[in-house]
Formats: sequence, C-alpha cells, structure tokens
Amino acid sequence: MDHRFGTTPIKAPLSDEELAGVNSTNRGLAETLGIRISYVDGERTEGYVDVTPDHHQITGIANGGLYCAIGETLGSIAAVAASGAVAVGMNNNTDLLGSVAEGRIDAVALPVHVGKSTHLWRVEMYHEAKLVATTNLKLMVLRDRS
Amino acid sequence: MDHRFGTTPIKAPLSDEELAGVNSTNRGLAETLGIRISYVDGERTEGYVDVTPDHHQITGIANGGLYCAIGETLGSIAAVAASGAVAVGMNNNTDLLGSVAEGRIDAVALPVHVGKSTHLWRVEMYHEAKLVATTNLKLMVLRDRS
Amino acid sequence: MDHRFGTTPIKAPLSDEELAGVNSTNRGLAETLGIRISYVDGERTEGYVDVTPDHHQITGIANGGLYCAIGETLGSIAAVAASGAVAVGMNNNTDLLGSVAEGRIDAVALPVHVGKSTHLWRVEMYHEAKLVATTNLKLMVLRDRS
Amino acid sequence: MDHRFGTTPIKAPLSDEELAGVNSTNRGLAETLGIRISYVDGERTEGYVDVTPDHHQITGIANGGLYCAIGETLGSIAAVAASGAVAVGMNNNTDLLGSVAEGRIDAVALPVHVGKSTHLWRVEMYHEAKLVATTNLKLMVLRDRS
Repeated sequence: MDHRFGTTPIKAPLSDEELAGVNSTNRGLAETLGIRISYVDGERTEGYVDVTPDHHQITGIANGGLYCAIGETLGSIAAVAASGAVAVGMNNNTDLLGSVAEGRIDAVALPVHVGKSTHLWRVEMYHEAKLVATTNLKLMVLRDRS
Repeated sequence: MDHRFGTTPIKAPLSDEELAGVNSTNRGLAETLGIRISYVDGERTEGYVDVTPDHHQITGIANGGLYCAIGETLGSIAAVAASGAVAVGMNNNTDLLGSVAEGRIDAVALPVHVGKSTHLWRVEMYHEAKLVATTNLKLMVLRDRS
Repeated sequence: MDHRFGTTPIKAPLSDEELAGVNSTNRGLAETLGIRISYVDGERTEGYVDVTPDHHQITGIANGGLYCAIGETLGSIAAVAASGAVAVGMNNNTDLLGSVAEGRIDAVALPVHVGKSTHLWRVEMYHEAKLVATTNLKLMVLRDRS
Repeated sequence: MDHRFGTTPIKAPLSDEELAGVNSTNRGLAETLGIRISYVDGERTEGYVDVTPDHHQITGIANGGLYCAIGETLGSIAAVAASGAVAVGMNNNTDLLGSVAEGRIDAVALPVHVGKSTHLWRVEMYHEAKLVATTNLKLMVLRDRS
C-alpha cells in the first residue's frame, strides 16, 4: 500500500495509484460489502457502495448495518489519513434517515474534531442526492505505537 | 417463513423449524455476513457470527461495522417478534469495547423500552465470555400498515 | 408567546419581540441554566449561555450535562419552529470535545433531516471560535394533536 | 471530601459521612439541578432528583437535558469511584423514554465496560418504577496525572 498512508499525516490527495493501493489492501469487510474508496486527503475521505440484494434486510431495502459499516470504514480511513497513526473506533452512532433498495450510496467523511488522542468524524451518505444516513464515528488514536 | 413471525407478537420461543424459516428468509446482509439467529421469543433474540478474515479491517481484527450489523439485525428481529409488526431502525449506537480476530461472537438482544410506536433494544455481543460490543438500537414500529 | 410559534412552520426570522416572547415563555430548565435564544427561523436556531460556577462539575469546568441541555433546548425549539407542531426528544447524543470554565458558549441548531414524523438536528456549540460540543437530537413530531 | 474518592479505587460503599462529603463538594450543575448522590461503591452509583417546574420545558414536563445531566453526573462519579482517577466524559448518549412532570427520578449507574483508559457506564433513570431514560456515558480515564 501507499507508503505514506498510516505512517504520516496525508497532506495532499492520494494519487490514483495510491487509492488503488488502499482499495486492494482494504480487504475483509470492506471488500465483502463492496465498499470502494475514491478520494482521500487529510481532511476528507470519499467512497461508495453499489447496493445489491446482498445488502438487504427482509423487507427488500439495505440493512441498516450497511450504513454503519460504510461510516466505520470511511471514518477510520479518514482518521488514519489525518493522523498518520493507527486509529481504533470506539463509538459508531449511525442515524438511518432513508431507504435504498438499489443503486449507489455515495459517502463522505468530514472532520468534526481532530484531537491528539481522539477524533470525531461525521460520515454523510447520499443516494440520488438525498441524505439517507449519517455516522458519527469516535476513534482513539494510538500515537505511541512504534 | 413462520406464519407467526411479523404478523403477531411472539409469546413462546420459535421452534427449530420456525428458526430455520427465519434464517432461510433472512437473506441479504445477514447471509452475506454469516449472521445466524439461534433463539427468538418476544423478550429475547439470540444469534451469532463466526468471525473470518472476510469480516476484518486492515489491521486484522473484525471491522467495527460487523458489530453494528449484528446489533441492527438482532435488534430488528427482536422488535418484529415483540410487536408483531414491521419495525424500522432509526438510530444504531454501537460501542466498540474489544477486538476479535477469529472465533464466535455470541449476541443477545434485550428490551430496554417497548412502546407503542418506538422500541429500544440493547444488543450485547460476547467473545469468549468477554463483552466486546453493545448496540442500542432505536426503532419505529409501523403499526397501521395493513 | 409568539402566536406563530408552535402552531405553524416559521418561514421568516422571529422578530425581537417574538424572541422575547420565546425567552419569557421558555422557563424551567432553560431559565434555570441561563439558556437564551437569540435567533429562530425555520432552518436555524441560535442561542447562548454564559458559563458560571453554577454550571461546573467538581474539577471546575462546565459539567457535560450543560452541553446536552443546550443541545436539547435549541434542537427542540428548532424542530417546533420548522414543523409548526409539538416535537418530543427521543435521543440526545452529545459529543464533548472541549472544556469551558467561564465565558460564553454560542450554539446553533442546524437541520440534518426534517421528515414528516421525525427530525434530526445537529447543534454545534462554540467557545471563543472553537467547537466544544455537538448534539445530535432526534425528535418525534406529533402532528395529529389538535 | 472523602480522602479516598478520586485518588484510589473505591472497594467498599462510601459511609454516610463520605457521601455527605461528595454531595457538599459536588457543587455547580449538580447543586443547581438538585442532583443528590445516595450510594457509591466501585460498581454502582445511585442518586436522585426531585422534579420541579425549574426542570421543565415549555410543555410542562422535565426538559430532556435534565436526564442527560443526571446521567453525566452519576456516570462521572461512578467512573472516578471505580478508577480512583480523574475521568472526562467524551460522549453522552441519552435515550428519552418517558415523561415526568413532578416527583422523584431515581437513577443508578452500572458498569458496561471498565477499561484501563476508557469506561462505559449505563445510567438507568426511573420514575415510579418505570424506566424513563437511559444514558450511555463514555469517559476517558486520565491515569498519568500525578
């Protein structure tokens, strides 16, 4: 992956090559759910998911857990990018405001509070220009891991 | 699926056959993530996930979004079971208290407040007898859908 | 109090006289804590508190409950203003980001989601131009009370 | 105040004299709102408020901010008692489940997670044996202040 990412604060947007590195490294839940990162700098992280039946709950719309996972993933990457350190999620508070059966969810993580030991990021999720969910993600930054 | 589930409040535990019906109907995100329901009555819903690398984030432990999705899924099923009506998640507030790299996460949804139009369920998640996450899930119950 | 407030959605900013009406009617906890409302229209509510030792916790800074109460009060007034109906707080999620020992806390309530039956307002609180707390206030709007 | 409180983890319940010390020291917002502490040991803190019109919002019931402040105050005292260190609230998540116009609110703070650097306490608030609010209070414990 990008040699800058996770070791030093990101000051300029990641290049396409660096973004590809983040996405190919970001396996696990992000890959399982199809969460893709499309933009990262120190003050904003963007990404998206294309909703399919694999994301649904019984009634045929996206399970609320999908929005939480998008918020967790983008907020965590944003915190790592801004701090240049490992960041651990402590609290994920997601408000579910709309429903999506299919199509793209676009998400952006924005900083609310970037402190020395804790961060708070707000992740806004949109479908067809309508806000469908927000996540407030509180993280602890582990600075003294060497 | 169980003819009782979702149409009338559940008073006695679902039978094994009825649970199998819930699990086979509960496709989508629950199936994608391997969330299985093992017990449902009107006052408690239990389930579990066996954590694999498909649930991880970059550092090799379960992505926080997994816990949120477990909380969302169990809390929603619990609300439907208790109310006999459709329930829609409004707020998913998940505290991340431990880390799990592999093995089972056992979860139980317990009622905090079961009102006419809103429910609050607390979902506790354990790994090897240690509490690793809690979700407070607020739902709106849609009673007058006929 | 303003004959418009609480009965019809507010479209234009409240006049000074109407604001005075809101403040003189808004007794109880708001008055006990010195929360003053300085601006209300349908899309924004502003107010402030001057912190004194009466707001402190043991260590000599404002008790976190003060920020929650500011968020609850401004968010509720904002929801009533926007909806023209009674609004009841369901969840108050307040992040405590800084500390204030004395001086003014300026607060603004901004709409995140204004739905038919529920609202979500974000209340930002500042001290000397620094963000010290945010409240996400979820409310239910009681439309059919006549 | 009690020489034990805030400097060493509390293992046995505070005596009446020690409780009086906590209450007389706990000025500021707790005194302004009439929050009284009635029991403290390392695993539970109890207290109460007698609701008066000074706690109301416009519609004549207790302002939601009152419940948040009770949760903040009891959860903070509980964290200090359990850790023997200074604890700082980071997130106050309060669910408002009932309404109280007058009479006593009894509250109890129970540990959800007591870690080295963070705590999570759940504060349950009752009126006439009915659960009317819960606060999940996340705190950071400041261990290395000497």
